[in-house]
Amino acid sequence: MIELIQDGSVTSAKGFAAGATYAGLKTQEEGVLDLGILLSDVPANLAATFSTNKILSPSLVLSRERATRGTARGVVANSGCANCCIGGQGLTDAKELTELAANHVGVDSQDMLVCSTGMIGVELPMALLRQNVSNIRMTDDGGHDFAGSLMTTDTRRKEIAVSIEIDGTKVTLGGGAKGVGMIHPNMATMLAFVSTDANVEQKFLQTALTEAVDSSFNMCSVDGDQSTNDTVLVFANGQAGGSAIEAGSAAAKAFQEALTYVCISLAKDMVRDGEGAQKLIDVTVESATTLSDARKAARDIASSSLVKAMVHGNDPNWGRIMMALGKSGSDMEESKIDIFINDIQIVHNGVAIPYHNDVVVGAMAGSPEVRFRVSLNIGDASATGWGCDLTEEYVTFNSAYST
Amino acid sequence: MIELIQDGSVTSAKGFAAGATYAGLKTQEEGVLDLGILLSDVPANLAATFSTNKILSPSLVLSRERATRGTARGVVANSGCANCCIGGQGLTDAKELTELAANHVGVDSQDMLVCSTGMIGVELPMALLRQNVSNIRMTDDGGHDFAGSLMTTDTRRKEIAVSIEIDGTKVTLGGGAKGVGMIHPNMATMLAFVSTDANVEQKFLQTALTEAVDSSFNMCSVDGDQSTNDTVLVFANGQAGGSAIEAGSAAAKAFQEALTYVCISLAKDMVRDGEGAQKLIDVTVESATTLSDARKAARDIASSSLVKAMVHGNDPNWGRIMMALGKSGSDMEESKIDIFINDIQIVHNGVAIPYHNDVVVGAMAGSPEVRFRVSLNIGDASATGWGCDLTEEYVTFNSAYST
Repeated sequence: MIELIQDGSVTSAKGFAAGATYAGLKTQEEGVLDLGILLSDVPANLAATFSTNKILSPSLVLSRERATRGTARGVVANSGCANCCIGGQGLTDAKELTELAANHVGVDSQDMLVCSTGMIGVELPMALLRQNVSNIRMTDDGGHDFAGSLMTTDTRRKEIAVSIEIDGTKVTLGGGAKGVGMIHPNMATMLAFVSTDANVEQKFLQTALTEAVDSSFNMCSVDGDQSTNDTVLVFANGQAGGSAIEAGSAAAKAFQEALTYVCISLAKDMVRDGEGAQKLIDVTVESATTLSDARKAARDIASSSLVKAMVHGNDPNWGRIMMALGKSGSDMEESKIDIFINDIQIVHNGVAIPYHNDVVVGAMAGSPEVRFRVSLNIGDASATGWGCDLTEEYVTFNSAYST
Repeated sequence: MIELIQDGSVTSAKGFAAGATYAGLKTQEEGVLDLGILLSDVPANLAATFSTNKILSPSLVLSRERATRGTARGVVANSGCANCCIGGQGLTDAKELTELAANHVGVDSQDMLVCSTGMIGVELPMALLRQNVSNIRMTDDGGHDFAGSLMTTDTRRKEIAVSIEIDGTKVTLGGGAKGVGMIHPNMATMLAFVSTDANVEQKFLQTALTEAVDSSFNMCSVDGDQSTNDTVLVFANGQAGGSAIEAGSAAAKAFQEALTYVCISLAKDMVRDGEGAQKLIDVTVESATTLSDARKAARDIASSSLVKAMVHGNDPNWGRIMMALGKSGSDMEESKIDIFINDIQIVHNGVAIPYHNDVVVGAMAGSPEVRFRVSLNIGDASATGWGCDLTEEYVTFNSAYST
């Protein structure tokens, strides 16, 4: 039973502190934060996933190297600068930033990871960071400020915390993220951090994170562009007590469900906040032959520009759904396909069925969330993916960013 | 030496006739054509490439089956209706349409292929087609009308013809196409037809077409959406005389160059006419390790929504080029990458070099064609791809099409 915590954040779980400050990386406005630290009171088991782009931020490269140890104390994150494509200086600066943060909170810099997000091709302003890091006040309700410090063009913080009971012990998972799917104008797209006081064995933690990311962040897409800085970290510090959660147990299943729930919630927050987006698109592909087929098909439908544009116009042009489904390459038989838009069936056995066009238009227009359900009727696998509509505002916003 | 023919079309080569009529598939406006036939006076060697979408138009399926014989007399094409996703009726109608056309021009229907383009999910109006097919007047300068009958939301015909001399014989290649890259609102995206009077051995003709398509149509992309109806056909009827052109000869090399030239010209016409498009994007990736790496990288850059949006805004935000390059997965070393925008270098060895921002903005703003040259400096392979800018008009147009 997953219980949602009101106003939850990355500091909702026991034994985590966080804080943030304005360090001069972003344009100053009232309350703007751009440098934050998340810290576990004790060494935490760590799992991580990273961007597969061939061009990577040195911040990511350093964190990926340190993550191989499977344990860490925390992470320092900055927005406004991706620390990417600036040559050898990037790794030097990433290392120094972890040292500055680690010294400030009194831990070894090897136990500190680093994430950067913002403009590609400009160097981190190290003088400003050196000067301002000590302004970060670490508190056990600093999660909101930490999430705020991650924001670039995000219009709101993306946070959640839930609790579950595992073997009689109540454990909490908190999450904070930034990003608007793949459409962030600087491409330093998404960061997500999950903290939990659950006692989770490290190998299982990595397996669980990979599974959760595959069902959440990897299922949300906006324009198919992929960041140089994408990072998801989960810290499990065991402060809730209880025996270690290991793969294959009932406890592992419960933890996996909660972790996936947190990641899906953050992923949907990102898509909803997509630049110019007015609607969330929720695509479920069911009765596919394999999970990977279902996922590929759901993702291809949710990320098709033409599907996204038709949602913007409340246009039930289902031929575009068939087109995107077909280009996924997943197994399918055209004559068995059923399609529903917001629960109204519009295709049966691959052919349009008579329907009241106005009813579907009305259902799409009246809802901030448009749901497509595609039944392939050839197997047992299903998957859900998320996208957002494509609007004139997206184009306007992205056609003049750096100038 | 490839020579361009003024006002060339698919009937520029010897022994080809064509014609078109209005059959009531599209909204009637002055001069609108929506049904056309292209015919070779004698059996022609045929090569073809087709969409790899899993959902396919029965028109395509029938043509693909007939194309396996390697010879044909012609093709009947309609616009306004994709003849796709309408169940078993689609194949019945496709067959009847070839019979109607074949009877009209006096050939065997097995020698007639069929291509349809337009709205997905509606049936061909067979009564109208039966009634109007006999209005098509076949002439040896009917190529322009044939190209006109392919148009859906195209704003202009896409045609070309060239001549070359092969072993002392002058041969001609003519081409006609429709489509606006991958962004056609009904997804019945692109059709292209090439006719030549060259005497080309059939197996080599298929090899040459595949190579030409890989360098042209497969290198132009708008939003990554892929049609259910894409078809490219080349008819070689040998009416220019000369001995058969076979693989490996100097003649084959000359023919290949001319065929690729024709296909690239038609592909660029499609991208230039992209919905809402104001600029052509020309991306060359050079000194890559392999040709497939160079092609993948050029295509990924030309089709990135963020790259396309920055071109629309004349914004030299080169970090997006690096992002798209990296996500291609091609071999690269960040520290060796050079990038040029309209011949002005903006990245050297993976790092921004000082440049006059205004000069690049001015160069982008002043030109209907924006050229990116990306030097990976790790090999000898290079490739060029084409895209168009992403504009507010694209979104407006595609957000309300069927309603």
